[in-house]
Amino acid sequence: MTHALDVTALASDLIRHPSVSPDPGESQTALGETLSAMGFEVFHLPFGEGAERTPNLFARRGKGGPHLCFAGHTDVVPPGQQGWQHGPFAGSVEQGILYGRGACDMKGGIAAFVAAVSSFLENTPEPQGSISLLITGDEEGPARFGTVKVLEWMKVHDQIPDFCVVGEPTNPTVMGEVIKIGRRGSINVRITLKGRQGHVAYPHRADNPVHRLIRILSELTEKPLDEGSEWFEPSSLQVTSVDVGNTATNVIPAEAKAALNIRFNDLHTGASLREWIETVCHRHAPDCQVEASISGESFLTQPGPELNALKVSVQDVTGREPRLDTGGGTSDARFIALYCPVAEFGLVGASMHQIDEHVAVSDLDTLKRVYERLLERTVA
Amino acid sequence: MTHALDVTALASDLIRHPSVSPDPGESQTALGETLSAMGFEVFHLPFGEGAERTPNLFARRGKGGPHLCFAGHTDVVPPGQQGWQHGPFAGSVEQGILYGRGACDMKGGIAAFVAAVSSFLENTPEPQGSISLLITGDEEGPARFGTVKVLEWMKVHDQIPDFCVVGEPTNPTVMGEVIKIGRRGSINVRITLKGRQGHVAYPHRADNPVHRLIRILSELTEKPLDEGSEWFEPSSLQVTSVDVGNTATNVIPAEAKAALNIRFNDLHTGASLREWIETVCHRHAPDCQVEASISGESFLTQPGPELNALKVSVQDVTGREPRLDTGGGTSDARFIALYCPVAEFGLVGASMHQIDEHVAVSDLDTLKRVYERLLERTVA
Repeated sequence: MTHALDVTALASDLIRHPSVSPDPGESQTALGETLSAMGFEVFHLPFGEGAERTPNLFARRGKGGPHLCFAGHTDVVPPGQQGWQHGPFAGSVEQGILYGRGACDMKGGIAAFVAAVSSFLENTPEPQGSISLLITGDEEGPARFGTVKVLEWMKVHDQIPDFCVVGEPTNPTVMGEVIKIGRRGSINVRITLKGRQGHVAYPHRADNPVHRLIRILSELTEKPLDEGSEWFEPSSLQVTSVDVGNTATNVIPAEAKAALNIRFNDLHTGASLREWIETVCHRHAPDCQVEASISGESFLTQPGPELNALKVSVQDVTGREPRLDTGGGTSDARFIALYCPVAEFGLVGASMHQIDEHVAVSDLDTLKRVYERLLERTVA
Repeated sequence: MTHALDVTALASDLIRHPSVSPDPGESQTALGETLSAMGFEVFHLPFGEGAERTPNLFARRGKGGPHLCFAGHTDVVPPGQQGWQHGPFAGSVEQGILYGRGACDMKGGIAAFVAAVSSFLENTPEPQGSISLLITGDEEGPARFGTVKVLEWMKVHDQIPDFCVVGEPTNPTVMGEVIKIGRRGSINVRITLKGRQGHVAYPHRADNPVHRLIRILSELTEKPLDEGSEWFEPSSLQVTSVDVGNTATNVIPAEAKAALNIRFNDLHTGASLREWIETVCHRHAPDCQVEASISGESFLTQPGPELNALKVSVQDVTGREPRLDTGGGTSDARFIALYCPVAEFGLVGASMHQIDEHVAVSDLDTLKRVYERLLERTVA
């Protein structure tokens, strides 16, 4: 390599390979070729069968330690309704702004990492550590045959890194604001109570399941789950629906249902919350059904040398001290956290999933320089 | 008149004039002719227009006091699905049982009263007091243009009685068990709360109306409304439905609704309960909507000479001491109670509204003798 790759050209090229989840298109093929040319060993790792077949890519350059991995996804959400001023798959640049689906979420992030590696290798052709990319084609979809399966493969093939950076957009308005070091867990619970139907004039002959449900929901919501922890906001329980569907004013209904979601911090686990809810439910209604689905456990990467390297890299390039944050929704980082320390830092996410998704060319360059600085601090 | 009318023949004849609510058929015409022949002044008093037109009848014999009124209805509920062993409008008697729609609810009751008057007049051709009948054709329907309107007419025409007996079936299994001396009131309430929709991961940006509704319903149901009163069971509040209809597990909904019914005794009024509910609702949710519909206030006829005459008449004929009861659903007695003391005593109601509605001929005769004894004790 004689010249480092241009981050904007790389991002634009990835946008021009449409890859709306779950259709992978050719974006990973193009990315794999670029990485091969840079000396990476590239593994195309499709998982799932038929309609669930998900393309994934793992690529690694070098065998030594430390091993820094960059994680991301090539799939994008659909362009949505008409109204794009700029073709969603044109990858055009106008007045310093790159437009297109995936510009910030997160083909721009992948491009920044690839360009950063390219630039880094110009100055450090033989780094001591190794560099890898974990790229899935199913982050915006069910995420069943993507990062989870690649991590299993990496475990078997001894490819687990020492530190992983996820390139999802993390900055609300300007580069350098936020590094995500963890996320809350999420559990969805459905409660179904059966009672005994009857006439409202004769309540002693019936068993009103709504009253039992009120007592359950009252107990579950009457006080906060916690006051927050060192790195996390307080956990939050939200009852999202209660449904009886009884239109007769003189009838005590036979059944009542409720749904709730808890976003929980590191003071809880999905299992501990499920057990608590089951205990409360069964105390008020021994026969009630509780269905719990744990979408993800909370995770946290405690501040340490790797996270510090990322933080200092952000500070060096942006001049801002990034806030270490654990808020917001979920990402594939929750899967990676089961194997190694992981943090997230990427572009400004304000336009993600919207019409005319875009990113400033200057932000792409900033992100590229942050990643390059991180490579210098960790694997040089 | 030389021979008293036969109660079973009268009941059978009324059944053979079908009068499924709201279609009056010819039953009131036939009844009016019978009463005219017995010396009653008969007023046909239809109220309501068009499809709501409701036939009613008021008939009075004599001008003097005391004035005893018998109240009832000629309309019956539909015969329902097939499966009648005996034609619903055949009025046939088999092995001592009269079958047909209205046999116990309440053409049998009307027949018993007419036969009782007939028999009474044989022995007392010129009674001191007067006897009247208040008969509506809309008790099983909306009851808007029936008893309510006839009572207004009676008030204007100075026909309000000193005591009224409603001939609805009151006995659960055998004649003489129960006299109803009042009923609980009934109020239906709908509560609608609007909040602010949002993502469950960011509850501070939303306002979950379900949580406010849980607190409202919890407070409304946490303790009994009362412990009952001298003649009434405790009041009962039943939440009949709660509806949100949110299927998204990650969304805090914008609206939540609940419906409840209260059956209340004489320690409350519809207005006092509405005010209590509004106060609780607005404390937890200042903007919430509360729609209250009072179906009927509670009423009670305190034991006194007229009620005692009915009680003793039942005891004389059946050998049982009837329980004075205020339970069960509503009847037109709630309207009459606004004008004069009222009590209910009729047939065994076990088969009312069912297929093969029926009444024992011996019960018809018992009821006729109770009413005759009451006439002797009050208007002779």
